[in-house]
Amino acid sequence: MKVLVIGGNGTIGKSIVKELSSRHEVIIAGRSGGDVVVDIENIDSIRKMYEQVNDLDAVVIASGKVHFKPLAEMTPELYSFGLHNKLMGQVNVVQEGIKHLNDKGSFTLTSGILNREPIILGSSAAMVNGALDGFVKHAAIELPRGLRINIVSPTVISEAMESYAPFFRGFKPVSAYEAALAYSKSVEGAHTGQVYIVE
Amino acid sequence: MKVLVIGGNGTIGKSIVKELSSRHEVIIAGRSGGDVVVDIENIDSIRKMYEQVNDLDAVVIASGKVHFKPLAEMTPELYSFGLHNKLMGQVNVVQEGIKHLNDKGSFTLTSGILNREPIILGSSAAMVNGALDGFVKHAAIELPRGLRINIVSPTVISEAMESYAPFFRGFKPVSAYEAALAYSKSVEGAHTGQVYIVE
Repeated sequence: MKVLVIGGNGTIGKSIVKELSSRHEVIIAGRSGGDVVVDIENIDSIRKMYEQVNDLDAVVIASGKVHFKPLAEMTPELYSFGLHNKLMGQVNVVQEGIKHLNDKGSFTLTSGILNREPIILGSSAAMVNGALDGFVKHAAIELPRGLRINIVSPTVISEAMESYAPFFRGFKPVSAYEAALAYSKSVEGAHTGQVYIVE
Repeated sequence: MKVLVIGGNGTIGKSIVKELSSRHEVIIAGRSGGDVVVDIENIDSIRKMYEQVNDLDAVVIASGKVHFKPLAEMTPELYSFGLHNKLMGQVNVVQEGIKHLNDKGSFTLTSGILNREPIILGSSAAMVNGALDGFVKHAAIELPRGLRINIVSPTVISEAMESYAPFFRGFKPVSAYEAALAYSKSVEGAHTGQVYIVE
């Protein structure tokens, strides 16, 4: 298969690339590096990315940012950032990708634990993750040509604990490798509309 | 208690008002009628609404719109409508309301079944409902002064089946009265961070 991994240079992305590249042709897309440059917040950038890659069987997105702030300091503008970046960035990668993927191709998105188990500062993440899980469950029933879509919702990643630990006390981290397995299950399996919880 | 019901003239809203008004002072807010006029999509309109009502113990929102279109016809602009109206409209009612509610007051929002059981045309609703459920589960852990927040997620309402039935074949509708009971449980109970599923 030919697999595009957006955010393939990130903490989880590197593990996804490692897991998939032994069996598949992997193309890495990222904001500042990789085989193709893309800023998922910018729909024109997404369109340009797809113009540069052909014959895709799978698109994986391990990318997306939100603000972490106390609820009392959150504003419509700060929420809007997460809605445009992590939420609509991923949704636009799907919507623009539909016409580029081969029949029976797959999309695999990324949400996260915070809409199931909130942490202080995480209201934007909770909102965006919930929106993504809902969108994926929906999109599975309308995608054409046997295209599939799933989403991976991991807890905090071991490799990120150096900076994230104070915000995730009591959460058992999973390794980036464990998270990567869920992306492999989505890309190489046959499921659609699934939220893969990795925790 | 003094309860503000936004969307109190709608299908569910009327039942909420009926259920609560026998025991509480109910103020109805709506886009085109009621005791106070409000457009939840407009944050200045939300601020003006709160300036007109004092001493609130509870705010209920039974209001919010999204577009229903095939996935293939959805655009960032059409998604944006739902994100601004049903999602951020309700979020802004909470954020602006925090300083107006009495201690131990409550917010009760409205999502819906479509992020759990998608229907054709419902991708925006699935996204927005998921976002709202996630936000509410989060906000409960950061609200000050004992303020509570819950959300009611009903299936299709019997009273709306005349126009909605073709989109909800096989779904067992619930009456607006049954949905209203969940709002009562939120307002008059002690829960917080709950998604009340009514189906």
